[in-house]
Amino acid sequence: MTFDHSMNVSEVFLVFATYTTLIILKMMMMSFITAFFRGLRGAFENPEDIADTRREEKFRQMRSHPDVERMRRCHQNDLENIIPFVLIGLMYSLTAPDLESAEIHFRIFMVARICHTVAYVCPLPQPSRVLTWLVGVLVTFSMAYRVLKMTFHL
Amino acid sequence: MTFDHSMNVSEVFLVFATYTTLIILKMMMMSFITAFFRGLRGAFENPEDIADTRREEKFRQMRSHPDVERMRRCHQNDLENIIPFVLIGLMYSLTAPDLESAEIHFRIFMVARICHTVAYVCPLPQPSRVLTWLVGVLVTFSMAYRVLKMTFHL
Amino acid sequence: MTFDHSMNVSEVFLVFATYTTLIILKMMMMSFITAFFRGLRGAFENPEDIADTRREEKFRQMRSHPDVERMRRCHQNDLENIIPFVLIGLMYSLTAPDLESAEIHFRIFMVARICHTVAYVCPLPQPSRVLTWLVGVLVTFSMAYRVLKMTFHL
Repeated sequence: MTFDHSMNVSEVFLVFATYTTLIILKMMMMSFITAFFRGLRGAFENPEDIADTRREEKFRQMRSHPDVERMRRCHQNDLENIIPFVLIGLMYSLTAPDLESAEIHFRIFMVARICHTVAYVCPLPQPSRVLTWLVGVLVTFSMAYRVLKMTFHL
Repeated sequence: MTFDHSMNVSEVFLVFATYTTLIILKMMMMSFITAFFRGLRGAFENPEDIADTRREEKFRQMRSHPDVERMRRCHQNDLENIIPFVLIGLMYSLTAPDLESAEIHFRIFMVARICHTVAYVCPLPQPSRVLTWLVGVLVTFSMAYRVLKMTFHL
Repeated sequence: MTFDHSMNVSEVFLVFATYTTLIILKMMMMSFITAFFRGLRGAFENPEDIADTRREEKFRQMRSHPDVERMRRCHQNDLENIIPFVLIGLMYSLTAPDLESAEIHFRIFMVARICHTVAYVCPLPQPSRVLTWLVGVLVTFSMAYRVLKMTFHL
């Protein structure tokens, strides 16, 4: 077996590029949300980030806040899950899968991760966050299975 | 010099896809191990994750635990090392290296990272963890050197 | 529209590979800098990393230090920004952009991230760090915009 560089690859790759770009942009949004909550809650990690120059204000705002920490954990979870999806998805896209089954994988993953972010940020009661996380992991495992089935060559 | 899209590329790429997928799956396993230790040690970061609904139990389990923190650091170290390996390895695979030397790179990296995880999780006495980490870094540097030698074009 | 596998792609890809490899190496350097500051400040997270075997020394050095935490945040910021750049940049490189405009994107990003690291590590007064971070984000957004314009296919 070898990677098929046919029409199918390039169409799947187009779809892959679209979904991947959107989901990475969603991940990058977490930086803005975290920064927003830092300002809102007055909770900073770097003394130079605190606009108020009075010494006691600097001291008071050098703290963590549960809302800020929640956003950071959500961002970290994105890094731990979205990047593996993109990297395995790239190889999956080159195994010439059905366009339709590829689209299903990418679409389920994107929806699951958006729901995961909502469930984390709100927060919604469990098991909503665990389930949306698990759906994302299973989509990645399914793509990894296809890659390994097509390439196994240890 | 240009990237060679010959037979060699696609064979190397197959091998790359196999090793990379396996090592990313290993990295994703860290999420499950961390979650397992959170349950075992009763150490959570999100109040909604604690099954026990009594207020004092929620309060007691909102804590960190050394075992959980160790697993998180191991996961973080994977993110900091495995993702650069995959990204540089992708470009390396397209420089049409010898199949054999490519396999040696990928294989040493995979073994080193598995040993690193064992050394971190157990934990084994130093310098076992530092050395396994360093081997992984050196493999990545060796691939980066080849990419830069082949493409240098600033 | 389809991905163009012409001369342009492979030349752009060569340039992409060079810049990407350099910027990932810069990111990996953060591990060494953090380890250096851990030794210098005597601030460790793993008891097995402390060379001094006396119990009270182990206890004393199991602490965090502002300098070490600063390096870690800088490394984390690299992970959160450089990896999205590389992944979106990979797809961008395959949309056959002008060689010149691709080079401008990559060059601005690399300079911005090096300045960001300097601004974070020193630290320089704000808004130097925020601005360098923002330049990197905007370069990534600009590449993402082109990818989405070329591929939109939800």
